[in-house]
Amino acid sequence: MNLKIAVLPGDGIGPEVVLQAKKALYAISVMFDHEFIFEDALIGAVAIDKTGTALPEQTLNLCLNTDVVLLGTVGDGDPKYDNNPDAQKRPSQAVLKLRKELGLFANKRPIKTYATLMHSSPLKREIIEGTDFIIFRELTGGIYFSDKSLNDEKNKATDVCEYSEEEITRITHLAFQAAQKRRNKVTMVDKANVLETSRLWRNVVQKVAYDYPDVELNFLFVDTAAMQLVLNPRQFDVILTENLFGDILSDEASAITGSIGLLASASFGTKKALFEPIHKSFPQAKGKNIANPIASIVSAAMLLEHFGLTEEAKLVHEAIEKAIEYNVVTLDLNPGTSFGTNEVGEFVSNFI
Amino acid sequence: MNLKIAVLPGDGIGPEVVLQAKKALYAISVMFDHEFIFEDALIGAVAIDKTGTALPEQTLNLCLNTDVVLLGTVGDGDPKYDNNPDAQKRPSQAVLKLRKELGLFANKRPIKTYATLMHSSPLKREIIEGTDFIIFRELTGGIYFSDKSLNDEKNKATDVCEYSEEEITRITHLAFQAAQKRRNKVTMVDKANVLETSRLWRNVVQKVAYDYPDVELNFLFVDTAAMQLVLNPRQFDVILTENLFGDILSDEASAITGSIGLLASASFGTKKALFEPIHKSFPQAKGKNIANPIASIVSAAMLLEHFGLTEEAKLVHEAIEKAIEYNVVTLDLNPGTSFGTNEVGEFVSNFI
Ligand SMILES: CC(C)[C@H](C(=O)O)[C@@H](O)C(=O)O
Ligand SMILES: CC(C)[C@H](C(=O)O)[C@@H](O)C(=O)O
Repeated sequence: MNLKIAVLPGDGIGPEVVLQAKKALYAISVMFDHEFIFEDALIGAVAIDKTGTALPEQTLNLCLNTDVVLLGTVGDGDPKYDNNPDAQKRPSQAVLKLRKELGLFANKRPIKTYATLMHSSPLKREIIEGTDFIIFRELTGGIYFSDKSLNDEKNKATDVCEYSEEEITRITHLAFQAAQKRRNKVTMVDKANVLETSRLWRNVVQKVAYDYPDVELNFLFVDTAAMQLVLNPRQFDVILTENLFGDILSDEASAITGSIGLLASASFGTKKALFEPIHKSFPQAKGKNIANPIASIVSAAMLLEHFGLTEEAKLVHEAIEKAIEYNVVTLDLNPGTSFGTNEVGEFVSNFI
Repeated sequence: MNLKIAVLPGDGIGPEVVLQAKKALYAISVMFDHEFIFEDALIGAVAIDKTGTALPEQTLNLCLNTDVVLLGTVGDGDPKYDNNPDAQKRPSQAVLKLRKELGLFANKRPIKTYATLMHSSPLKREIIEGTDFIIFRELTGGIYFSDKSLNDEKNKATDVCEYSEEEITRITHLAFQAAQKRRNKVTMVDKANVLETSRLWRNVVQKVAYDYPDVELNFLFVDTAAMQLVLNPRQFDVILTENLFGDILSDEASAITGSIGLLASASFGTKKALFEPIHKSFPQAKGKNIANPIASIVSAAMLLEHFGLTEEAKLVHEAIEKAIEYNVVTLDLNPGTSFGTNEVGEFVSNFI
């Protein structure tokens, strides 16, 4: 297979971890005789420093002209950038613009526990053991992308949350299709007791559900869902939700397994797809060869799966599991480790 | 002290648990020679069944003409009521209308671990031990109360989230004042990388913070906060946030301690105050004498504190702790118990 992959290393630890993901993909390409062409471009804080905007035209064009995007991490939470009144100069803006321009309306985040890592979860083993679900988060609608305003006196602000039936329908189909390949259960999360958009979501999701009679559908309010994720995460198979609730719940969910450094997410639309680790950019760890590259390598495996390269993806996952089994892991997973970002990446690509 | 207390038992287990709270208050009134006058009124699903509206005029008037409201539970999550297109007939509507009409702009929810109950938390002891924080949630603004609409074709919905400087300022003062009586730390939770209202919150909170130089202020994005509540809940002292984020985070927070059946919340404005347990109405448990009355009794203790009756409140708390110590608790805390709602309530009011 020929694939042109846009690589956006981003800032913080992004460049280091994405390099390990590239190595894994390269190993796969050699082994299976695929041709993967990588092309790098700037995004986030580094792009602001070098070009003045968080998402340079050139980067966007590259993404529009490649098959798929592999993203490192984009800094967020650094007041130096985040409080800039010019939105163009806020790293988060790059992420949002990229999602919108590439039409990445669905974000898919698998959450599962790794037997060898369960001890590092804040939750008790009996609560999280066997947890295995996927969150489908709508990614280009809702309060993220509708009108915002601040009045002239700067003492009143508004954000509009808008959803259309069409936006809800397309991601709902994806969630139900995913459930059919799993345990046939979709939990729709909303706040229908308060929000009009949530009531529209409920109606539309119920309509779509008729096409999937083998899938059980239930509803949870977002506050209850936030509680249930901690009390009994095993109950979930596929969670379907809107943009903002998905943002909150997927971060909460990734905290419960003890495997934050191992989780990645896929965002896709009808044409494009983007893969990235779920962790942040940790500028403090930058350049120290201590960042855990596994989530980024997992994002590469998800990329392979996306293009139907199932066997290839499986090999990457197996190599990762071996690294964990042999304790070839970074500081976050083993405080006494002698392995760094590079060594873990080397081990994985050699094992492939 | 003379107090006129409006009691709204609500539906589900509400009436049973609020009865135990009344008993505790009665015991206190006898002991300290206070005059507490209780007057009951309908709210929620029972009010819909009996009068056709979730919050009858009569109930609202009673609340407007008393010093304070003691609320049981109001059913929410039952599709029979929740999906009624007529908002007046949805139980949640009663809660929202009551908040607005009584001007209850601040919701205060203390979260702490009880040594004797830590085993029932889904989190590991070393994570939650010593957790003790308060959430200040803005309660009459934001996306809950601004414009909502559904277009004629019923395929596009919107909810507006609006905040004014004034709404933010008044609750921010309360949060900082609370922090001064505690560990002097306020964590403001928002989504300033995406929302205009969050950026207004940040600006206003920073302005108010100048009046409290002894209080440390920091900011967290709501997704990170949802993660940190699970990873390291001890880091928090006072959490300050807007309405919807507060709804989600306070339910998540109450799940981590293992003490859901023991937590209550206070809502207040400039004139009125309302106290209630944080748990739901559990219609399945109704009338079985198995519901845990402690959260409702705790809400009565919070009521006493609110009126400066510190010693009285302390006695109630001590009686509750004794009940737990002697294992005079309901099913949820001890599967082999022989005590029901009534017996636990009796024990507490006798011990006072
Ligand atoms: C950076 C930020 C805008 C983004 C979001 O809120 O979607 C992030 O938190 C995420 O979940 O990818
Ligand atoms: C019943 C519902 C409207 C309410 C809310 O969302 O505020 C409830 O969840 C709460 O937290 O008190």
